[in-house]
Amino acid sequence: MAAAAAEQQQQGFRPLDEASLVAYIKATPALAARLGGRLDALTIKEVGDGNLNFVYIVLSDAGSLVIKQRAYFEASALQKHRGLCPDHVPEVYHFDRAMSLIGMRYIEPPHIILRKGLIAGVEYPLLAEHMADYMAKTLFFTSLLYNSTTDHKKGVAQYCDNVEMCRLTEQVVFSDPYMLAKYNRCTSPFLDNDAAAVREDAELKLEIAELKSMFIERAQALLHGDLHTGSIMVTPDSTQVIDPEFAFYGPMGYDIGAFLGNLILAYFSQDGHADQANDRKAYKKWILKTIEDSWNFLSNYGINTKMGMGKHTCPLYTTAFVELWNKHKDGNGEAYLPPIYNSSELLRLAQKKYMTSLFHDSLGFGSAKMIRRIVGIAHVEDFESIEDASKRASCERRALNCAKAILKGRRQFESIGQVIVHVQSFDRD
Amino acid sequence: MAAAAAEQQQQGFRPLDEASLVAYIKATPALAARLGGRLDALTIKEVGDGNLNFVYIVLSDAGSLVIKQRAYFEASALQKHRGLCPDHVPEVYHFDRAMSLIGMRYIEPPHIILRKGLIAGVEYPLLAEHMADYMAKTLFFTSLLYNSTTDHKKGVAQYCDNVEMCRLTEQVVFSDPYMLAKYNRCTSPFLDNDAAAVREDAELKLEIAELKSMFIERAQALLHGDLHTGSIMVTPDSTQVIDPEFAFYGPMGYDIGAFLGNLILAYFSQDGHADQANDRKAYKKWILKTIEDSWNFLSNYGINTKMGMGKHTCPLYTTAFVELWNKHKDGNGEAYLPPIYNSSELLRLAQKKYMTSLFHDSLGFGSAKMIRRIVGIAHVEDFESIEDASKRASCERRALNCAKAILKGRRQFESIGQVIVHVQSFDRD
Repeated sequence: MAAAAAEQQQQGFRPLDEASLVAYIKATPALAARLGGRLDALTIKEVGDGNLNFVYIVLSDAGSLVIKQRAYFEASALQKHRGLCPDHVPEVYHFDRAMSLIGMRYIEPPHIILRKGLIAGVEYPLLAEHMADYMAKTLFFTSLLYNSTTDHKKGVAQYCDNVEMCRLTEQVVFSDPYMLAKYNRCTSPFLDNDAAAVREDAELKLEIAELKSMFIERAQALLHGDLHTGSIMVTPDSTQVIDPEFAFYGPMGYDIGAFLGNLILAYFSQDGHADQANDRKAYKKWILKTIEDSWNFLSNYGINTKMGMGKHTCPLYTTAFVELWNKHKDGNGEAYLPPIYNSSELLRLAQKKYMTSLFHDSLGFGSAKMIRRIVGIAHVEDFESIEDASKRASCERRALNCAKAILKGRRQFESIGQVIVHVQSFDRD
Repeated sequence: MAAAAAEQQQQGFRPLDEASLVAYIKATPALAARLGGRLDALTIKEVGDGNLNFVYIVLSDAGSLVIKQRAYFEASALQKHRGLCPDHVPEVYHFDRAMSLIGMRYIEPPHIILRKGLIAGVEYPLLAEHMADYMAKTLFFTSLLYNSTTDHKKGVAQYCDNVEMCRLTEQVVFSDPYMLAKYNRCTSPFLDNDAAAVREDAELKLEIAELKSMFIERAQALLHGDLHTGSIMVTPDSTQVIDPEFAFYGPMGYDIGAFLGNLILAYFSQDGHADQANDRKAYKKWILKTIEDSWNFLSNYGINTKMGMGKHTCPLYTTAFVELWNKHKDGNGEAYLPPIYNSSELLRLAQKKYMTSLFHDSLGFGSAKMIRRIVGIAHVEDFESIEDASKRASCERRALNCAKAILKGRRQFESIGQVIVHVQSFDRD
């Protein structure tokens, strides 16, 4: 971790422990105020992964916050995305560059990690529109659809330094699953042949090469960089996106695909969580509906047919990606200058082409994220929590085969509805 | 020019005039030595454009060099590309960051600008293989086929600062020709309707948007950035690429397309230069052959069928793009890891896919470069030197129609031979 080491050597950096953390908070009015000044009986919980991040939840009688260290790009992306989408990004109270320290909102209970909610079978009726809102705003406003080339390249240069995190992603998403790699694992012995088949699939390898190059080369927008269902905290009313430590300028489809792909994983895991009390059939339908709505709300297609179907669909009308584009088409955005795209029909055609390309990118990256969670190093709790290995393998195999087919055939899909039909067609042995 | 202004304000910068230039050379051993120490009777010619660059040719009895000021990215790219391809990039003798000054080789007569040679009807039998060599090496060795992500992103971040030059390109290549812009011009009144048709061509505008986004977003390799036939100095034996002041990390096809597109412009201009002494028919065939060979030598396809056809085709065998790829496939390149692309058949498929995509990018960018030279601000001497405006317009119209068709249909071409046939089909009224 050369970057982290360099950061440590910055003047003024010292890793905090609980005692020095309290002293730091006392000396920092922006943080002390969030705890209501009640600093003598703080409860401090260390919740970091013991590796890259020091993470503390700090509670007083009168308030709460989270402190993270070693998190420059996370802080930077949080602040940027929070400015663009305050409803779904937690507030940063304080950032200390020299200490690589952020003090931020503690996302309090009853918020839970979305992935856990999906495993428990909880419906989140606002999830699709909240996430569409988040993705539309963070991606659109950090792209050349909204920014001048000068501003865009400034951002690109800044986040080039987060290269260690990008390298990690490259390895675990785009490389290891397609080769014999030390830390790859799968539900053995059931999926051994399936994992071997991935390593021998020439067509899949040609597709993943294209996505890998796009991931590294294409600075389309400032991404969250790790937008799976473990990076989202939810209640039925609230959706908060956290942990953008992998933030970088990359292809938009990587964020969108991460979210949709992890929902598809959740879908295929449901049979493993079904029991006599709940066969999960209705819940599976809700997941598919959420996948479909997320893309449709984001892309703003099909809004007309959905208007009035429910109280939650209308607000999207003004925040979806294409709506933002229309609203800001006369701004500083470099990509589509009004004197060139000078009729509403031409602009509509350009938008359709752009969104189709984004759709196919999202499907590609989404399926790559699915594959790596089944045959790569890091698995997901959706499947891991299925105790019966044979049953787990069966769920995983369906997801894997579905993902392989999407990755190879993604350019044939014309709508998210077709993808949903495709997903369902793999939902059997 | 905010970047240039900032550069001027750097400590130590002062613009040189002839007197202070001589003093600078006397105080700089690396430069004085190149003039054989004969500094008392220097001949100095100011050959800059009076705008961005101060350029001086300095001659003594015993040597020569060129001094340029305001050229940080040019110096940086020259040094990088010279290291990769010393045969076709002039040597940098001295670089002074604070003064934004480079001292470099004076490309001596009988070298002339290639564009002038093409207008005069001079054949350069080594041009195709020299340029294929230059493009293969500079592009391959600055891409993820050869470099780690870490090194690649360092380079990307560095050249993000050359944004002013990128913005200029965006405007004159990808924007102005497709809208009413103040400085657009064409051979009026003959081409007025043709220029208007470009501004009303929805299909063309959708394609140019895709290329423009790729130009800004896709950091595939360190490009020359302005590789037209005016940036190349030639003799029958020597090919030297100069003036990379637009250098940045962009799509490889932009450099390749610039070169090929300008050769196609030269082709269509020939009828305007024909006279009773020389109908230029043989020369036109040579240009087409040079276009075809340049791509084939670069991509290394068809080498087998060409082997032994002439003394100049063999050396290419070891320097073309795919040969470099094969030679360095076990190096640090991040894009195609050997444990994944683990059979020669699979690697060949990956290379074919990569080169096909590069071919289509090159055709797209090449045709965009042609269009802008006919209906945009900056025209080419190939056409401008045709005095009869009606004849000039006729040549330009063929080139324009050819370029429009390539831009729209580029993905249908499977070989450069098909492109040549296509070009010839437009060579009539």
